[in-house]
Amino acid sequence: MFGAFIGTLRDREPLVHCITNYVTVNDCANALLAIGGSPIMSDEIKDATEIAGIASALVINIGTLNERTVETMVAAGQAANKNNVPVVLDPVGVGATKYRTEVTKLLLEKVNFTVIRGNISEIGAIYKGHSSGRGVDAGAMDMMDVNDIADMAKKLSEKTGAVIAVTGKVDVVADKDNAYAIYNGSHYMSKITGSGCMLSCVLGAFVGAIETRLEAVVCGVSAMGIAGEIAEKKMSGTGSFRVAMIDGLSNMCENIFNEGNKIERL
Amino acid sequence: MFGAFIGTLRDREPLVHCITNYVTVNDCANALLAIGGSPIMSDEIKDATEIAGIASALVINIGTLNERTVETMVAAGQAANKNNVPVVLDPVGVGATKYRTEVTKLLLEKVNFTVIRGNISEIGAIYKGHSSGRGVDAGAMDMMDVNDIADMAKKLSEKTGAVIAVTGKVDVVADKDNAYAIYNGSHYMSKITGSGCMLSCVLGAFVGAIETRLEAVVCGVSAMGIAGEIAEKKMSGTGSFRVAMIDGLSNMCENIFNEGNKIERL
Amino acid sequence: MFGAFIGTLRDREPLVHCITNYVTVNDCANALLAIGGSPIMSDEIKDATEIAGIASALVINIGTLNERTVETMVAAGQAANKNNVPVVLDPVGVGATKYRTEVTKLLLEKVNFTVIRGNISEIGAIYKGHSSGRGVDAGAMDMMDVNDIADMAKKLSEKTGAVIAVTGKVDVVADKDNAYAIYNGSHYMSKITGSGCMLSCVLGAFVGAIETRLEAVVCGVSAMGIAGEIAEKKMSGTGSFRVAMIDGLSNMCENIFNEGNKIERL
Repeated sequence: MFGAFIGTLRDREPLVHCITNYVTVNDCANALLAIGGSPIMSDEIKDATEIAGIASALVINIGTLNERTVETMVAAGQAANKNNVPVVLDPVGVGATKYRTEVTKLLLEKVNFTVIRGNISEIGAIYKGHSSGRGVDAGAMDMMDVNDIADMAKKLSEKTGAVIAVTGKVDVVADKDNAYAIYNGSHYMSKITGSGCMLSCVLGAFVGAIETRLEAVVCGVSAMGIAGEIAEKKMSGTGSFRVAMIDGLSNMCENIFNEGNKIERL
Repeated sequence: MFGAFIGTLRDREPLVHCITNYVTVNDCANALLAIGGSPIMSDEIKDATEIAGIASALVINIGTLNERTVETMVAAGQAANKNNVPVVLDPVGVGATKYRTEVTKLLLEKVNFTVIRGNISEIGAIYKGHSSGRGVDAGAMDMMDVNDIADMAKKLSEKTGAVIAVTGKVDVVADKDNAYAIYNGSHYMSKITGSGCMLSCVLGAFVGAIETRLEAVVCGVSAMGIAGEIAEKKMSGTGSFRVAMIDGLSNMCENIFNEGNKIERL
Repeated sequence: MFGAFIGTLRDREPLVHCITNYVTVNDCANALLAIGGSPIMSDEIKDATEIAGIASALVINIGTLNERTVETMVAAGQAANKNNVPVVLDPVGVGATKYRTEVTKLLLEKVNFTVIRGNISEIGAIYKGHSSGRGVDAGAMDMMDVNDIADMAKKLSEKTGAVIAVTGKVDVVADKDNAYAIYNGSHYMSKITGSGCMLSCVLGAFVGAIETRLEAVVCGVSAMGIAGEIAEKKMSGTGSFRVAMIDGLSNMCENIFNEGNKIERL
């Protein structure tokens, strides 16, 4: 089932509107194109609400938020909700600063999200309403096992209505009833900027193209991890790892996916 | 004639001021350096009007416009006009949203452009004053042949005074009297973000260094296409295609250009 | 001594807060990760002052400044000073426009910098209070020899309290009493955007991890230059040079540093 989603995404070429940070926005656009989506980036409120209506998906990433763009995020998110366009949240650094925590709370109040993707610190911060994380790393991951994470994700899914994707050494994807563990990926993905941001945008393409959202997210997370594994084999350092990961995404197809995926139903 | 422009550009090292989007700005700066220009990016109004006076060319790209930067675009464009500095417009997504269409209209009223570069949807949107394009792709290209596009470009040039560059499967460059078709390029250029934005900046370097502007633009469009063809031969996916295209620009010289260009006078 | 700093930096993994330009911000984040730091980018004032308190270092780069971000730079710089967090200034283009010159003056009045890194035009502009530089290149370098530059850097260090790093064909690093020349590097570093910006962020990681700041800066400048030399041997053009330079940083270790560094005490 999962493998066929790759072709479906490429056939449908979903237009994914991203309101995202300026650090990794170029990687996000290239990752989206590589997997078969069509990116459009805009954070001007006059522009963004209109785009949110015509796009197949909206991705909101708070990596370099400011007051102007937060206003756009809320307006675009509500426009997407009104048009039944799926919305992905990447709450970069929530828990690390008060402002990011407040903005994430605001977004969760005002917008219904289809997917929330973060590392364990970020998802934990949303779940608990607070976090001791010092930044955007996933150090705390070590203290919870896969089943603990899946339980938290299921509960957060029940609370928010969103599919929850927790990425780290092992990735966990869950809705309120079901959870998957994905064992793909490379630790070099944490040695470049943007692996998480790119994944959130790629997930936007998957849920923009595919109706069965839990499975679409599982597929997207695994595909990204497979691209990372391929890149690890070709790299001479982290610069070439990043280039090779985009190459891996652009070459992704049903065969490569079927041979490479390590998905476990929990 | 065209081939010699490459050396002229590298000798003159034109300073190109870009007010551009944050998605592809890094690629734009690297493409400019690769072809022999010197980039300076600034969108703060206090800064930009002064830079527009000392630069060899100004490039305005509306890819991630907002109200603050639109104000800067108008002021810098007018400062460039006053100083006889050539100005390139890249109307990213005009026709796709009302705001982009309005801003493009405003820019065309307030600033005299030397070059306008876009895909067929964008140039068509400016020509017709409207468009049904859903975004920034060039799908509508399929419905017009090279001569139709050249006719439209000539008329738009007459109306605006600008050299018009319409990029797609075949590229068309025209002023009001003359038109060229350029058959260089790779379809992978549409599989990465920034090919169009980079080209617009590269065209800024060409018209900043070379007086005969129609021919300078033809040369720039062809050089970019040749770099794309070289990259296609070296790529392992779209990530490495992008790297190889910058490599190709940085290695561009009169010989490579003369052997590779596919320019036809219409 | 210098070589051991590489391992210390990697062990301590300093969190480096960057308020930087949107042109090279992605390269900055990847360079920081490559050398063993942890980047966090934020220019929203509500966010940045809090981050400045928890980070190991703050880097302020005025490459694409605007009024909103300048306000954040001052506030974050003062918060860092209050918390004894070292602050690096990269005064991109100071002397090229009045606004950049004014902002640099303001920053130097309001914030105590630990390191100031620029090319000879920029450092010269700060030293003299004015400059005739047309932009952000280092052309004027040719007119001063290493000892002239070291003298100027020492005097500027005395005036500001900061370690001064002047980068160009030869790099000079000085505090008020001591100066070093570093002969590493590749001229291709000036053919890509971001070499200087990346270095400033890398210096943030070095002074965030290592107490002996003059020596930490010398080490960082040399390490970056070694990465450039390695990249020059592997490149096929400037696109692949950039990728290979990040690879070189990510592979940097005490052995490679000890074999490659060309540091001279003046």
